Amino acid sequence: MSASFFTSRWVDVPDSVTEVPGAPLPDGFRAGAAAAGIKPSGGLDVGLLVSDSDQTTSAARFTRSGAAAPPVIVSRDRCRLDALRAVAVNSGNANAATGRQGLDEAARMQGSGAMMARTSEDRVAVCSTGVIGVQLDGTKTVRGLLEAGKALSADGADAFQQAIQTTDRFEKRATIDVELPGGTVRIAAQCKGAGMIQPSHATMLCFVTTDAVVPAETADLLLGVCVKRSFDRATVDGQLSTNDTCILLCGGASGVVVEPQSQAELIFGQALDALLRQLAIAMCRDGEGARRVGRVTVRGGHGPNVERVARAIGNSPLVKTALYGGDPNWGRIAQAIGMALPDTAPLPYDITIEDVPVCIGGNAVSHDEDDLVRRVAREEVEYAIALPGDGFETEVFFSDLGHEYITVNAEYTT
Amino acid sequence: MSASFFTSRWVDVPDSVTEVPGAPLPDGFRAGAAAAGIKPSGGLDVGLLVSDSDQTTSAARFTRSGAAAPPVIVSRDRCRLDALRAVAVNSGNANAATGRQGLDEAARMQGSGAMMARTSEDRVAVCSTGVIGVQLDGTKTVRGLLEAGKALSADGADAFQQAIQTTDRFEKRATIDVELPGGTVRIAAQCKGAGMIQPSHATMLCFVTTDAVVPAETADLLLGVCVKRSFDRATVDGQLSTNDTCILLCGGASGVVVEPQSQAELIFGQALDALLRQLAIAMCRDGEGARRVGRVTVRGGHGPNVERVARAIGNSPLVKTALYGGDPNWGRIAQAIGMALPDTAPLPYDITIEDVPVCIGGNAVSHDEDDLVRRVAREEVEYAIALPGDGFETEVFFSDLGHEYITVNAEYTT
Repeated sequence: MSASFFTSRWVDVPDSVTEVPGAPLPDGFRAGAAAAGIKPSGGLDVGLLVSDSDQTTSAARFTRSGAAAPPVIVSRDRCRLDALRAVAVNSGNANAATGRQGLDEAARMQGSGAMMARTSEDRVAVCSTGVIGVQLDGTKTVRGLLEAGKALSADGADAFQQAIQTTDRFEKRATIDVELPGGTVRIAAQCKGAGMIQPSHATMLCFVTTDAVVPAETADLLLGVCVKRSFDRATVDGQLSTNDTCILLCGGASGVVVEPQSQAELIFGQALDALLRQLAIAMCRDGEGARRVGRVTVRGGHGPNVERVARAIGNSPLVKTALYGGDPNWGRIAQAIGMALPDTAPLPYDITIEDVPVCIGGNAVSHDEDDLVRRVAREEVEYAIALPGDGFETEVFFSDLGHEYITVNAEYTT
Repeated sequence: MSASFFTSRWVDVPDSVTEVPGAPLPDGFRAGAAAAGIKPSGGLDVGLLVSDSDQTTSAARFTRSGAAAPPVIVSRDRCRLDALRAVAVNSGNANAATGRQGLDEAARMQGSGAMMARTSEDRVAVCSTGVIGVQLDGTKTVRGLLEAGKALSADGADAFQQAIQTTDRFEKRATIDVELPGGTVRIAAQCKGAGMIQPSHATMLCFVTTDAVVPAETADLLLGVCVKRSFDRATVDGQLSTNDTCILLCGGASGVVVEPQSQAELIFGQALDALLRQLAIAMCRDGEGARRVGRVTVRGGHGPNVERVARAIGNSPLVKTALYGGDPNWGRIAQAIGMALPDTAPLPYDITIEDVPVCIGGNAVSHDEDDLVRRVAREEVEYAIALPGDGFETEVFFSDLGHEYITVNAEYTT
């Protein structure tokens, strides 16, 4: 298997999975893109992704934000989410905080996408990403979608990827072949996201396409579980976006069926899980200037506390700057634990960094500091926390916080 | 009145208040400091603050952290918090995550402080600030406290201030005279704190001394209210510390009594409120490299939601980097509101920045962008949020997030 995509030790890649070079779309899908003048750079900023089969099934997850953008509201409320056939996307403008006009513009995108995809409007999801609070220029998106529609091609994944990206430093996508008992199926995932990322349901934009035949309920189940184990566990800056969307389209061109509760479902699910987990980690690695990615695992006897502690650590600017600096300053982890669990002092907690215990029962323990410094200078750093009790465990992937984050974010709109 | 301390437009300074140049201690107090070799710099790092009167009353607030440091636990559990007479402090080491040995070291500091202050141990609070997870060298603190005790002087406030500081860029302290109906009293406050700051009860270290005669219950009431309106409303990085402590010592040398529910109590309270609010804002201004301070006020019909939104905005790295960059990117404020109130979309919220409405009912409204850019380039920037309903209002003061924060925090222990 090629090692070009699955680089993280935190992802178990099943033997049934083979990476496909060039990350093409599965059979039965076409994509196209256009430069519609929404991005100031003049780059590709409108994309259309289409499944050719009328039998296409789908599943979707959206941000839970109270300020969810019009495209999210339109996709969520005006689509057959179990039978989507196309996605119309723009980058450079999130069409968020844009009110009724924003809803109208999202609906226009949906209409244009449906026309070019030759399907009904309720089978077209719309997504936007970019700056918040600026009205989307409908003339541009409609023109862009017409152009993207004309450009639709089985080889369109490259252009589509460029059209969905904003501050991303590298492409986050891959295609895998998965050997199921009934034959080989292909899954492709195209993802964008670097900042404003702390998924709740889904995060950022992620479009997964497969030529497997997947009943809609199974698609929904698998996407739900895999999103929970991937994007839901990733944080760049703790900021839930207005536009997060993750869509799975199952076109069925392979003819290989993923039956509910079958061996095929298990293998397909494991493959999808590996794909989305690696993408979530890649998103953290691309976390607006990030140098390193951390994973914190927390065990303990109380589920909500385990979750609180993991989030507190993954979102602590002090922990994140230490990660950036290659600094094994575990006192900041102790601080984050204490903050997450107020009024519990003295709390006996254990902290282990890269297999080196540094704090046991809330007390510092001696360790080889030079060795630890070397361990936290690697690209991935693992923190393991034990709270009192047992029975619950969670993990959070997180970016470091460095100068590039400041540079990117202090100068984004101006 | 001198303008040297009260610089913020967000602090109402009562007419009864006059700033005292040089920020001396009130009558009846002495302070001393020593360089005990705890700070690598070799600077002053141990301090002792003593009230001469055996009748001294007091009040205190501590961090709620589940990882509260041994000095906090010793002060909280082994002191007469209504009758403290002295505070023994060290900087350079937080004596946190240090377990039983840390408790022993905190108790030794308490004992040494009591000896030098000539009072009982349960009337001496202990405080530590600095790096977490390193055992405190008791030989150094004891020697330092003996030396600080010998140096005790009515003029000791300067040295004491230096001894309590860590990454602070400037001194945060002031002394005011307050005209009460029965005569003039003096209040001094000495404060340290720049990072790891999101108070819950108290924050950072703050020592308030006054020569007023204040019944302990009144002292507790006033300190509680004023801390809630000042340090509890400030955030640098959203990080509750392991060591936050705020102590009020009332020595009584002026003979002027602050009776419960009297006019004197009201005026004294207003003065203390102004003092602590300005200190809280100064702490944000000193927020590890901060360039600007923001204030967000949130109004609405649901108390917890109002609080959630204010914290989400004040702690958003995206809002904070925009503040740093002088960027009126209010879309990030919309995002933070939506994140704080999941599953409420479409939520009608209003955003006003420096009196310029930019978003009404969740929809962008046109405004003079150049004018807004000029307004957000000032040292203090005000954001006003309106949520549906009425009856609740809160505020949060917050630092921006810039390159200096990264520099300071990526290179702190190493």
